[in-house]
Amino acid sequence: MVLRLFKKHSKKVGEAPGTIVYTGDVIDSKTYLQLITYDINSFQEKEISVDEISGILNDEGMKWLNVIGIHNPELIEKIGRQFDVHPLVLEDIANTSQQPKIEDYSELIFSTLKMFYVDSQGELKMEHINFVLKKNILISFQEMPGDVFEPVRKRIQVGRKRLRESGHDYLLYCLMDAIIDNYFVVLLSIVEKIDALKKSITANPKKYDLMILDKLQEEIAVIQQSVEPLKKIIPEIDDLDSPLIEDSHSIYFRDLHDHINQISSTTFAIKDKLSSMTDFYLSAVSNRTNEVMKTLALVATICVPMTVVAGIYGMNFQYMPELSSPLGYPLVLTSMAGIALSLYSYFRRKKWI
Amino acid sequence: MVLRLFKKHSKKVGEAPGTIVYTGDVIDSKTYLQLITYDINSFQEKEISVDEISGILNDEGMKWLNVIGIHNPELIEKIGRQFDVHPLVLEDIANTSQQPKIEDYSELIFSTLKMFYVDSQGELKMEHINFVLKKNILISFQEMPGDVFEPVRKRIQVGRKRLRESGHDYLLYCLMDAIIDNYFVVLLSIVEKIDALKKSITANPKKYDLMILDKLQEEIAVIQQSVEPLKKIIPEIDDLDSPLIEDSHSIYFRDLHDHINQISSTTFAIKDKLSSMTDFYLSAVSNRTNEVMKTLALVATICVPMTVVAGIYGMNFQYMPELSSPLGYPLVLTSMAGIALSLYSYFRRKKWI
Amino acid sequence: MVLRLFKKHSKKVGEAPGTIVYTGDVIDSKTYLQLITYDINSFQEKEISVDEISGILNDEGMKWLNVIGIHNPELIEKIGRQFDVHPLVLEDIANTSQQPKIEDYSELIFSTLKMFYVDSQGELKMEHINFVLKKNILISFQEMPGDVFEPVRKRIQVGRKRLRESGHDYLLYCLMDAIIDNYFVVLLSIVEKIDALKKSITANPKKYDLMILDKLQEEIAVIQQSVEPLKKIIPEIDDLDSPLIEDSHSIYFRDLHDHINQISSTTFAIKDKLSSMTDFYLSAVSNRTNEVMKTLALVATICVPMTVVAGIYGMNFQYMPELSSPLGYPLVLTSMAGIALSLYSYFRRKKWI
Amino acid sequence: MVLRLFKKHSKKVGEAPGTIVYTGDVIDSKTYLQLITYDINSFQEKEISVDEISGILNDEGMKWLNVIGIHNPELIEKIGRQFDVHPLVLEDIANTSQQPKIEDYSELIFSTLKMFYVDSQGELKMEHINFVLKKNILISFQEMPGDVFEPVRKRIQVGRKRLRESGHDYLLYCLMDAIIDNYFVVLLSIVEKIDALKKSITANPKKYDLMILDKLQEEIAVIQQSVEPLKKIIPEIDDLDSPLIEDSHSIYFRDLHDHINQISSTTFAIKDKLSSMTDFYLSAVSNRTNEVMKTLALVATICVPMTVVAGIYGMNFQYMPELSSPLGYPLVLTSMAGIALSLYSYFRRKKWI
Amino acid sequence: MVLRLFKKHSKKVGEAPGTIVYTGDVIDSKTYLQLITYDINSFQEKEISVDEISGILNDEGMKWLNVIGIHNPELIEKIGRQFDVHPLVLEDIANTSQQPKIEDYSELIFSTLKMFYVDSQGELKMEHINFVLKKNILISFQEMPGDVFEPVRKRIQVGRKRLRESGHDYLLYCLMDAIIDNYFVVLLSIVEKIDALKKSITANPKKYDLMILDKLQEEIAVIQQSVEPLKKIIPEIDDLDSPLIEDSHSIYFRDLHDHINQISSTTFAIKDKLSSMTDFYLSAVSNRTNEVMKTLALVATICVPMTVVAGIYGMNFQYMPELSSPLGYPLVLTSMAGIALSLYSYFRRKKWI
Repeated sequence: MVLRLFKKHSKKVGEAPGTIVYTGDVIDSKTYLQLITYDINSFQEKEISVDEISGILNDEGMKWLNVIGIHNPELIEKIGRQFDVHPLVLEDIANTSQQPKIEDYSELIFSTLKMFYVDSQGELKMEHINFVLKKNILISFQEMPGDVFEPVRKRIQVGRKRLRESGHDYLLYCLMDAIIDNYFVVLLSIVEKIDALKKSITANPKKYDLMILDKLQEEIAVIQQSVEPLKKIIPEIDDLDSPLIEDSHSIYFRDLHDHINQISSTTFAIKDKLSSMTDFYLSAVSNRTNEVMKTLALVATICVPMTVVAGIYGMNFQYMPELSSPLGYPLVLTSMAGIALSLYSYFRRKKWI
Repeated sequence: MVLRLFKKHSKKVGEAPGTIVYTGDVIDSKTYLQLITYDINSFQEKEISVDEISGILNDEGMKWLNVIGIHNPELIEKIGRQFDVHPLVLEDIANTSQQPKIEDYSELIFSTLKMFYVDSQGELKMEHINFVLKKNILISFQEMPGDVFEPVRKRIQVGRKRLRESGHDYLLYCLMDAIIDNYFVVLLSIVEKIDALKKSITANPKKYDLMILDKLQEEIAVIQQSVEPLKKIIPEIDDLDSPLIEDSHSIYFRDLHDHINQISSTTFAIKDKLSSMTDFYLSAVSNRTNEVMKTLALVATICVPMTVVAGIYGMNFQYMPELSSPLGYPLVLTSMAGIALSLYSYFRRKKWI
Repeated sequence: MVLRLFKKHSKKVGEAPGTIVYTGDVIDSKTYLQLITYDINSFQEKEISVDEISGILNDEGMKWLNVIGIHNPELIEKIGRQFDVHPLVLEDIANTSQQPKIEDYSELIFSTLKMFYVDSQGELKMEHINFVLKKNILISFQEMPGDVFEPVRKRIQVGRKRLRESGHDYLLYCLMDAIIDNYFVVLLSIVEKIDALKKSITANPKKYDLMILDKLQEEIAVIQQSVEPLKKIIPEIDDLDSPLIEDSHSIYFRDLHDHINQISSTTFAIKDKLSSMTDFYLSAVSNRTNEVMKTLALVATICVPMTVVAGIYGMNFQYMPELSSPLGYPLVLTSMAGIALSLYSYFRRKKWI
Repeated sequence: MVLRLFKKHSKKVGEAPGTIVYTGDVIDSKTYLQLITYDINSFQEKEISVDEISGILNDEGMKWLNVIGIHNPELIEKIGRQFDVHPLVLEDIANTSQQPKIEDYSELIFSTLKMFYVDSQGELKMEHINFVLKKNILISFQEMPGDVFEPVRKRIQVGRKRLRESGHDYLLYCLMDAIIDNYFVVLLSIVEKIDALKKSITANPKKYDLMILDKLQEEIAVIQQSVEPLKKIIPEIDDLDSPLIEDSHSIYFRDLHDHINQISSTTFAIKDKLSSMTDFYLSAVSNRTNEVMKTLALVATICVPMTVVAGIYGMNFQYMPELSSPLGYPLVLTSMAGIALSLYSYFRRKKWI
Repeated sequence: MVLRLFKKHSKKVGEAPGTIVYTGDVIDSKTYLQLITYDINSFQEKEISVDEISGILNDEGMKWLNVIGIHNPELIEKIGRQFDVHPLVLEDIANTSQQPKIEDYSELIFSTLKMFYVDSQGELKMEHINFVLKKNILISFQEMPGDVFEPVRKRIQVGRKRLRESGHDYLLYCLMDAIIDNYFVVLLSIVEKIDALKKSITANPKKYDLMILDKLQEEIAVIQQSVEPLKKIIPEIDDLDSPLIEDSHSIYFRDLHDHINQISSTTFAIKDKLSSMTDFYLSAVSNRTNEVMKTLALVATICVPMTVVAGIYGMNFQYMPELSSPLGYPLVLTSMAGIALSLYSYFRRKKWI
């Protein structure tokens, strides 16, 4: 989804709570379910239909169900019914303008957050990601097909022992970690754009720079709106005291918290930097105007007095004794040069040129 | 009511507390009472007079009394007497400058908040809304006839089960929810105005843009003054521990709180954006001045030296050898063109044009 | 007292604490004491001397002693001795730069706050008001004779039952309420001045506007310095748990707190507004300069090339073939008009005019 | 010491803690000790040497030892040994860049703060003041000989009863009070400088004003750095629960706290004011540029078209019918005046002049 | 490492936690281990290899192992295995973008912080420093060979008693203290650069100044990002209640905390100062433009009217009576001088020149 400071809110004014309304960009890609089952020895990945879900629920081993596409309310509702998910949670899953949060419904933990990535055109994009953690399965929802969770999937596949042995909560941590690691990549791309912008402004401030600056400010504001709630949320996971989260894994969530704090502080620093850029731009433009002015002033103040002198001796009075003197012309030329030179040296002394 | 940063305070200086004074815009629309009674099976809507109230108080089923118009102190007082409402509450109901708050008077819960809406002329309007929740009735007060609560009324009418079965507190939640959902619509309209403004400034900064900017800033300040207290108020409903609020409904009020936090954070972001717009405007004007200056400087610095040359050979000295040379005129023309060209290329090199 | 951001501190450096020093404007009005005694049935108002005080102390009924003028240290000290008031309290009463506070000396409650009002010249003035609440009397101190408390006095006189029956603490509340209600009036007058200023700047930014802006900023800073401590103080009255304050009256002080919060939030909003006004002013001036520049640029860039052409054909070379051609003059005129027109249309296209 | 935002830190990087290093300005004035002993009936002031200290330690009565000059590490160390003072305290005494703090070493209370004063040249100066409060003596350290404590000394001398009777802690309070009272004087002097600056900028913004503004900002930043820690420190004295501080004296320290809060809030207000002054300056300069531009534009746009007309009729074409018409000259003059007038009235209408 | 607001994050997106990845500048210097062993009587310093570590672990006396170079993951891992350090700690040691923190792993305390120093080219550099405190050894990790810890090493060598007798935690304190003392040096160098910049801008604002300002702002932002976490961390050492930290040493860590607070407050003040510098720059440029404008306006407005007059009498009308009058020329010259003088005096009166 293109980043906007403000997005349409999910349900219409006055609609009943729990109504599932997709609020993201219109998408025509199909929605499908991807199931990964694994234990220490085996790994299996396949696409399944909603109706097959009930069949797998009681299987042994780790199960990760990844739902791709949340723009199909009926599908979301079906999945919800299969896993016994509260309607308010389903509303939040489809509502792409929902801010990050974590909620403990005792039999399940629901968590939603934003993923940012730079697409192939260099555009910053945002995706609404949801997790539902149950005793014997982790369900993730993503807006569009894409390789967000690819590295994690590979780590399972190649048999990283810790990941295969640890429970569904550790898998949740790994997926969250992958998303949050991506924030650093996104921030870095913004920092690089700022550097390029700074160079462009310093060289020659253009109207277009202002528009880029405005866009960057909007992007960082959106990121900040997604990061700040996370700062409160991750420690909450530790406090949940839910049997769904193993105590020994809390060190990993604390590590996540560490990263988010770093992202948050960097985001603030970037915001600060951007808000000082408008002044920087103004200063650069002022500088430029000043330079142009100085040249104009130099030429004009040197030439205008010379014009006056030339104008005087161009008058057609009959009685102008200087005109008939043979020294008149050279003297006038000399005095004009003198005026020009003295004005020029005055400017030099003033350090204007 | 038109949005103003500051409105007349209710009672006159030194007047006794509990004096009912309407402080909104002067309105000549009549005030009337609308009673909706319903239970799981039935639904009835009718206009009633104040004196009929006592007759209905002991009826079974759900009762929602909607008072339209608060600019009639006598009416407010009569209703107050009928329902045994504290004079300080009545003062707050009529006082349109009262900030949002919630108060528990044990036998009733009083809540007041602001509703915002965009009227047919595209103007942002604010309305003072009050709720009095009693054991067997919910009374709402709105400033003007309008369709604020229409969607909720319809949901009752079409027989949404949850709404019909749940108590008066759930009805209160639904009405509040409808009001707060409207905040998103209002903020979205402001964001759209900002986008239009940004485009207008980028194209050509005008004095009128400054006035629009100023108005938007005032509007967002008023919205913020109404939203911030709400952030504190909604959690208070949870804490009231009043028998008037069912415990199982607290999840809905928490959902409301969620929405308000989102509105608050968006409001802050918009305010930030607006406050950076003045600088944006300044930058755009500077840019424009700079552009104009560059053109002026270009023309003037090229032409003025040529004027000097022309002026010199326009002088009437008798002894000016160049004048009688047949090559004089073409040489002077060439040198003038030379001056012009070299200045022009100097400007090019400086990237001023 | 005229509003200043900073006023002379009470006592000289190193002077002993408890020294009574009046720090307000020099006043030559006499100081006098006004005693109002009343109960449910009677009301009496008279001027008394300090020495008569001891005679009335043990009278039944309500007693309100209003001291007008605090610039007479001896008088303050005498009154202090009569009512057994701590020297530090007396120092605070005379010290007009004392910030608002409330203090519980068990046998008395001392409270000081600022009153603001707009005088007949439209000037904002500030007055230092003190209250000493004892078991059987309320003493108020005001800087100058004036009608601050007039509405309250009238309410007692016309026999408002609640006021007459309730104790000295309710009287204190009513007087404080009258003072704080006045804050709204003062803020409203500032908002009106801001609106006028905004109009003036939009029409034509003048140096004088900057001075008005500066004065308004100073005024709002002073008001804020007086309001912020009040936010902390009023709840303290509730917490005092003093026998001098009846528990059932705490609802009124809470109402006062409500008003102060509203004043505080409005003050902040006004301050915000004012601080954005300097930028608004700058933008307006920039706009103006830009407009002037555009006109100058238009005229200059159109006329200067024409001057060059005219200058060329004003040269006195003997061999200038164009001069003798009968078409020379009309062709030159036409080409000059052509230059002017093409430059003009260039400006139009650039939307500079 | 001249005020700088940042001063050299005491010890060299990596030096051992407890090393005594004087970090103030280089001073060549000698250091000496002044002992004041008094009780209710007697008062004695004399200069003593370090070695005489042990002799007086067990004397009855009040003892105040004032050490003038802290730039002599050996002396500080000797005194430290005599009174059994911890090396870290001695390091802090000599370290003029130490921020205000209070520390309870059970057998002594150490407190350090900054004194500000305006010297005879009108320059703001800062001095590092230290207090060591022991059971039977108060030791104060000041950087340079001066009359900081003079008023307190006089109050003891003239026999102010409370001061003579109360213990060493009350003496400490009086000395601190004298220092803090001086803050008001210093702030007042800054406010006066701001007023003068504002007038100067309004009249004619000069480069020099910017430098004054910068200096004032630095001064207020330094004051703030010294005041803010005090806000936390004074309440700590109350909390120390040390036998060295009499409980009944806590009212005085609370009074001190009151003053510091007032100073702090005033400092913030002044800082706000100063930070808005740069914008004020910019506005004034913009105004000025605008005024100059308007005059230039007026003159240029009126004269330049006239020059064009004059230039046209100064051309030397042989066939210019107007030239031979007797009405040509007066008509051209009239039309030039007409152009000038119509441009002038256009400017008037635009309110540019 | 060169200071950047944002650095590459350690591990790749989705990589497993505990992966050791060096993220600093590419370095080709070799990595080596330096072991210092000492007790009250002896001192020995030698370079050792990783494999020799196990041999010394059970030696008596104090042991300080300084690892120089963290860009060799294998080495880090080997050391980690020898000392039984958690993989997450090793990841943090190699990750130069890790923010300062302290962690208690019961059998060891891990602490990481940033060291700043000004290199020989006057450039500000940052180094990632780590400490692992175990019962019988202190291990420090630094990025590059350098003399950071030199003064501490010397103090041990020359036999400072306290340092030699106290445990490994006191040694840790001394090393941290050396690093933090260096912050003062770095801040001082920035303050000096600001002063130079201020002078340069006041004299003649150049584009280059803006770039320096931008760099300083970036540097102070990086320092702040490193200092703020320290404010929270040092008190944590006190709270750890670990047997690895002696209780009696907590006074030293509190002293460290004191210094960090001072650094933090100074950093904030410098940041404030820097952010006001852009306005300062803008003001200086405006000033300059204003000055240039005034000169231009003066010359142009004086000369242009004269040009008009000269132009008029340069026209070639046959009937211009003034031309044949012998007084024409001197009168016109006089009137031109008159115009110039009156305009000049007008400018003087306006205080524009």
